[in-house]
Order: sequence, then C-alpha cells, then structure tokens
Amino acid sequence: MKEVIPKTAQPRVLIIGGGFGGITLAKALKKSPYQVVLIDKNNYHTFQPLLYQVATGGLEPDSIAFPLRKLFEKQKNLLFRMAEVSSIDVEAKRVHTSIGAISYDYLVLATGSCTNFFGMEQVEALAMGMKNIPEALDLRSLILQNFEEALVEPEYEALMKFVVVGGGPTGVETAGALAELKRFVLPNDYPELDFHKMEIHLVEAGPRLLAGMSEASGVDAREALEKLGVKVWLNTAVEEYDGRWVRTNKEGEDFEAATVIWAAGVEGNVPEGVYGEALGNGRRIEVDEFNRVNLHPDVFAIGDVALMRTADWPQGHPQVAPVAIQQAENLAWNLDQLAAGRELRPFSYYDKGSMATIGRNKAVVDYRKLHLKGLMAWLAWMFVHLLFLLGFRNKLVVFVNWVWSYLTYDKGTRLIIRPYRRKMRLPVGQS
Amino acid sequence: MKEVIPKTAQPRVLIIGGGFGGITLAKALKKSPYQVVLIDKNNYHTFQPLLYQVATGGLEPDSIAFPLRKLFEKQKNLLFRMAEVSSIDVEAKRVHTSIGAISYDYLVLATGSCTNFFGMEQVEALAMGMKNIPEALDLRSLILQNFEEALVEPEYEALMKFVVVGGGPTGVETAGALAELKRFVLPNDYPELDFHKMEIHLVEAGPRLLAGMSEASGVDAREALEKLGVKVWLNTAVEEYDGRWVRTNKEGEDFEAATVIWAAGVEGNVPEGVYGEALGNGRRIEVDEFNRVNLHPDVFAIGDVALMRTADWPQGHPQVAPVAIQQAENLAWNLDQLAAGRELRPFSYYDKGSMATIGRNKAVVDYRKLHLKGLMAWLAWMFVHLLFLLGFRNKLVVFVNWVWSYLTYDKGTRLIIRPYRRKMRLPVGQS
Repeated sequence: MKEVIPKTAQPRVLIIGGGFGGITLAKALKKSPYQVVLIDKNNYHTFQPLLYQVATGGLEPDSIAFPLRKLFEKQKNLLFRMAEVSSIDVEAKRVHTSIGAISYDYLVLATGSCTNFFGMEQVEALAMGMKNIPEALDLRSLILQNFEEALVEPEYEALMKFVVVGGGPTGVETAGALAELKRFVLPNDYPELDFHKMEIHLVEAGPRLLAGMSEASGVDAREALEKLGVKVWLNTAVEEYDGRWVRTNKEGEDFEAATVIWAAGVEGNVPEGVYGEALGNGRRIEVDEFNRVNLHPDVFAIGDVALMRTADWPQGHPQVAPVAIQQAENLAWNLDQLAAGRELRPFSYYDKGSMATIGRNKAVVDYRKLHLKGLMAWLAWMFVHLLFLLGFRNKLVVFVNWVWSYLTYDKGTRLIIRPYRRKMRLPVGQS
Repeated sequence: MKEVIPKTAQPRVLIIGGGFGGITLAKALKKSPYQVVLIDKNNYHTFQPLLYQVATGGLEPDSIAFPLRKLFEKQKNLLFRMAEVSSIDVEAKRVHTSIGAISYDYLVLATGSCTNFFGMEQVEALAMGMKNIPEALDLRSLILQNFEEALVEPEYEALMKFVVVGGGPTGVETAGALAELKRFVLPNDYPELDFHKMEIHLVEAGPRLLAGMSEASGVDAREALEKLGVKVWLNTAVEEYDGRWVRTNKEGEDFEAATVIWAAGVEGNVPEGVYGEALGNGRRIEVDEFNRVNLHPDVFAIGDVALMRTADWPQGHPQVAPVAIQQAENLAWNLDQLAAGRELRPFSYYDKGSMATIGRNKAVVDYRKLHLKGLMAWLAWMFVHLLFLLGFRNKLVVFVNWVWSYLTYDKGTRLIIRPYRRKMRLPVGQS
C-alpha cells in the first residue's frame, strides 16, 4: 500500500484520534523534535459531555464541535489527515487507513471508547447510541418524529415512552433533559397530545445512580430526577428489546417504549492489529505506568482506550476527559525524554472531582470531600463546561443558548433535518 | 384512504407548504372563521436567502430554520402536520399524503419552487443543488471533502475547482462566499495546498449578472466578484457535466471541476393532480388576479409556484419572498371575504426592491430609482436579512456569527458532520 505522507528527517509520532487525549498530546508536542501526524475519521473534535444536549434539542451540533485543522493552524510540526484506520501493523510500524499507509516511529492510540451492548445484537440494532454527533442528531430527529407520529396513531402510546438505559452521567443527564422537554417544551408544540402519557424510565443494573461519584450525589440525582417525573429503576438489567418491549431481569418490570437510549456502558475502541493479549477488561488496552502498550515498546495508548492498573486504581482509571488529558500531558513529557535519551516519568492521576447535571438549577458536584447540589452545583457545572469547550465562538453561542433557554424555558433547535429511518417497523397493535 | 384529521364545524383551509407564503397566510387567518391545516414535509420553515451561508460554512443550519409548531404555538385555529403530499384529488376535495388523506374546503398551494435542470439528467445526478437544508449541508461537506482528498491526490487539481452555474442572487452570493473561503479561510486550514490552483467560475447563460436587478447592480456585482478572483463567464450555457468536465455552448470554454453548484433556475414545485392545463411557463400554476387556480375555484396558489400574468408582469411576478408574502396577505383577506359572501380584492404587487451580497463590505441594493453598492448596501443587506429571519434566538446567533466572522475573517462551521457520498467516482487521470 502506498505511503501517503513521506517521512522527513524528524522522527514521527502518529496519533490516532482527535478526542481530548489526542489533541492535548498533539498540542503539547508543539516544541518537540518530532513530526506529529494526527488522524481522525472526522475533521472535528467532539465535546462529548454536551452530546446529550444536541440530542435533546438544546444545542446545535456545530457548537460542540471544533475543526481540528483550525485547532492546529499555527503548529508547524503537525499534519492532520482525515482518515479511518483499517489496521495496525506493529511489526512494520505502519498504520493502514482509508487514504493509504502511514508509517510511524511512535504510535499513540487515543481512540477512545465506543458503546458496549454486551453482545445483545437486537438491542444494538434497535436502541439509540449517543457517542458521536451523527448519533445525537439521529436521536434528536427520532424524539421529535415520535410525537409527529403519535398525532397520526393516537392509540399508540409507546411512541410517547422513553427508556434510558444506564445510570451514569450520560443516562442521568439525558433522562433529565427529556423530563424538561416533557415539562416545558413538548406540550406547547403538541397541544393535541396528552402528556400524562409521556413516560421516561431510567434503568440501571447496579444498586445506585452515578456509581462513579459519591453516595450523596447518587441519592441527590435520583431525588431530583424523580421530582422531574422520571421513573428510576435500580438493580434492573435490560436483557432484550424488540423495538417495542424492553424486557429486564425483573419479573413484571418490562417497559413498552418506541425509543430506547443506550447509555449503559462503553468499551475500548481498539483498532485491528493490537494483539488480543494486550486487551484487559472493557476491551481496554493494558498499558504500563508510562502508557506503553505492554507488548509493543513504541506503541502507547492513552485515555478511555487505555487500561493502566495501579495501586490506587486496580481496575484502571475512570474513562473521563481529565484522565485522557493528564495522560496526554505526561506522555508528551515522556516522548521528549525519549528523544533526549532520559528517564521516563510514571503517570499519576490528580482527581479533579466529577459532576453531573439533571436540569434547571439542578446538578451534583463532588470535589474531594466536598459535595455540592442544587443551584451552586449547576452554576459550577455550566462554568466548567464552558471553560473546557473549545473555541471562543462556541463558548459564546452555547452561552447565548443557555441563557436563552433559561429565561424562556424553551429549547431552540427542534428541527428534524434528516429524519431518522427506524431499522424496523414498530409492531403496532400487538402486546 | 383514511381521513387523518376529522372535520369540525368550521370550514377548512388546507395550506400545503411552510415557506414564506404558507406561514404568512396561516398567521393572517388567525382570527378568521376557518380551521387552518398547514402541512409541510419538514417540521421547520427554512429561511432560503441564507442557505448559501450554511453551504459555505458561515452559519449553522439551525440558525436559519424555525420550528413550525413553535411559530403557531398560540394559534388555536391551526393544526400542523408533518406530511408529504402524494397527490391532490380536486373532485373529492382531498389531498393524499404520507400520513393519510386530508379533505379541505379551500386548498392553498404554497409549495414553492424546486431546482430546474432543464432536462439534463446527468447534470441533475452530479451537480449540487441548494434549495433546502440537507442539500446545503451536503454541499458544505463536499467543499471540505474536496480539500481533504486533494491532500492525498495532489496531482488532482479538479478537486480545487468549482463551477457555479447561474448568475442570479444565489449564484452570485455562493461564488462570493467561495472566493472569501479561498482568500481568508482555506489557506490557513490547508497550508500544504497551493491555493493559486483553486478556481471559482461563475457561468451565466444570459448577457449579464443579476438579471432581475438594475443594470448597475449587475455590473457592480461582476466587478466585485472579479476583484475577489471569481472568473465570470456570460452568454455561456452549461450543456453537459460528467463529474469532471463541464461542457458549455462555447468552443474552448469547458471547465474541469469536481464540484458544480447548480443555481441556474427553478421551476414550480407542482403536486400530482393539478391538471396540466393549469401549468404555464416554468411549470408554474396559472392563477387569476385573486390567486385562484384557473380551473378549480376552491384551489389557490401563491408565491413561487403561482403564475399570475398582469399588465405590469406579463410573464408573472418574480419568484421572491415579498411576492409570496404579499399574495398570502391578500389571499387571507379574500378568504375572509369569501366567508362573508363579499367581493374579492385583486392582488397588486408593491415592489420593495432587491438586493444581493458578494462579500465583506460588498453588496448591491436596488430600491426604486435608488442604487446602492459597497458598505452601505452590505449593511442594508444584513439588516434586512436579520429583520426577516424568524425568531429572536436565531437573529441573535446569526448576528454573533456575522460579527465574529467579520472581526476574525474566519468561518466557524467547517465540520464534515455527514460526509457527502459522491454519486460516482471521479474519473481520475483522464482528460
């Protein structure tokens, strides 16, 4: 296969993935002796924490994405290519992609995670994921299409019922946003429908919500969601979905719903060619304390896709942006050390706390021993998200949208721009 | 076919199309004795004059669209249905749609216009239209994909060449926007490419640009475009396009271009079932001075799809928003007159002038005998477009984007969110 980027005298660091890890690393290598090649299948970075707002009509997709070329406009030692990886050849030190082969001296896998359906193929085919912008837009279209259809099939109540699977931040935030649509937005748009019939179920297999946060946050989130009308089901695992009925492991706890949103778990997004032996739990790639992939000394993995077992984190670090960013920073330092023939520095994680929002004036924040809820937590959540969102124009547009929504109780973007095509006809009239 | 909206005691006005004509009429009938049913295949109104900015990365699609349900939230006598018309049965007075049959007492066709490829099927298959938001998004993706591809196929210069067909406002504005991308934006994103090789051709079959405006506007637009580097070809008609070569009626004036944008003409978007005899030039439906379709006294047509020949406008009125809006206002009055058994008022068009923008500080405006160009015209253009754009949030977001672009010489939204799939492989290496 032809080599699409001729090598220069500089050693090359090839980074796969333009998420938080990939872009932090690429930026940090600005003054390094390396040529940096960044590839991603998209030409933009996605700010994943706000995807659920795109899906629920609160934000436009362009506001939470940032063009990668613009991000690296001034970085002379970086080349970006939009390309999809087909496989990695660690022996020949090259990556095969949709645009040809790219060789490397050091390879960094920053490929993130993808939705884990735990092998349930029918669920995978029929439930809606929310890991990227096209998926969020599909979900946004489907939510609205359901109500348009419900007007025509008024006996068909499943169209007004939503099941969100997974009680982590994404599931909690999505259920909260749906509850606000039910309360403030949709009844104005569809005065002909009876919104008492709209149901939002949040189904979690474990014993509590927000398992990655404090006990208090889990309890507060549950209370806030229930106050908003969300029905929360704990210790309940989804086992089947046929497009109409969600079957769970609990007798009598099946749900009828035309829309199932899957936020129940992720697995490492591992390219072809990384040996099976390197994969740990959650299909994450086992790395040492320098983020080196165990079997390949010139291959590194950072962020969601990497599994670094330490004394503090025997099951690996949480799959969140701060870990990816901090690992990228440490790896940039280490790559410079490698170039200078000096010793590597092991990674250590500084936990900056975590947060989740539920709705207007409602959020939970954990920072070390401190736990916040309510208005203060909500303001903190917005501030932190605006801070980390890339690009001043994006910050401004998101801020305008949030202020607007807050003052008017409205969501701006209720457009079905590309209708979502259901993968099967709903089995109407059966039960 | 089942009747999807049961009739009430009120007589029903059924409006097809949520463009300028349709929404103005529906609003104006708010206090009428009618039940108003509005159908559109989308759940939003599109502000077509700014579609070209969506296509060229200046604006987000959500900013120029407005949810129809939100628009009519407070209008008790109106029902909206998202539905596509399959045919009209004027004898039975019902319209067959994707959601079922809808009967009417009065029918108003406000279906607008669609792109006219003058029977050239290959051009239709391979050129890019720009009449709706999905088409504008496809074009935006394709423009950016071309440059990503050009990096990988560096010998393939056709990828950097664009032909815009049609010298009306859409063609002029699109060519101008492409020229600004070439000048201010793309060279920063693709420093590896030689932008001297990027060419923008504007091809017009007639002897001048902006044929619907004053002679001076046509000349000014041409000068401004040429100053921006656009090559303008007059009296040149496109006859063929094979995905790589654009053939024209002029010897030696063929263009190699991977992207052809078709803005050369429109035709009436006429639903099935409107008798052929009612169609005039440009497939527009012949109407009398009350917008009644000649052969059907209870069917009306307004806006782009209607052809009203008067002494002042023997070929019909221009296909622009003010005509649609004014016809809608007059028809609303006349429908009230009909309900009261009173005499109808013939339509008369008040020409509010016309305008087109070319780029930063560059536009042309005609208002009666007055002709403006340059900065004043450009400010007037922006003011009028913000004024007519629906929704305060949209106005605010568009304003923020425009100010931002003006100050930074940048365009915010360079994202390939859903890659455009070319309908054929480019015939690389042939000539």
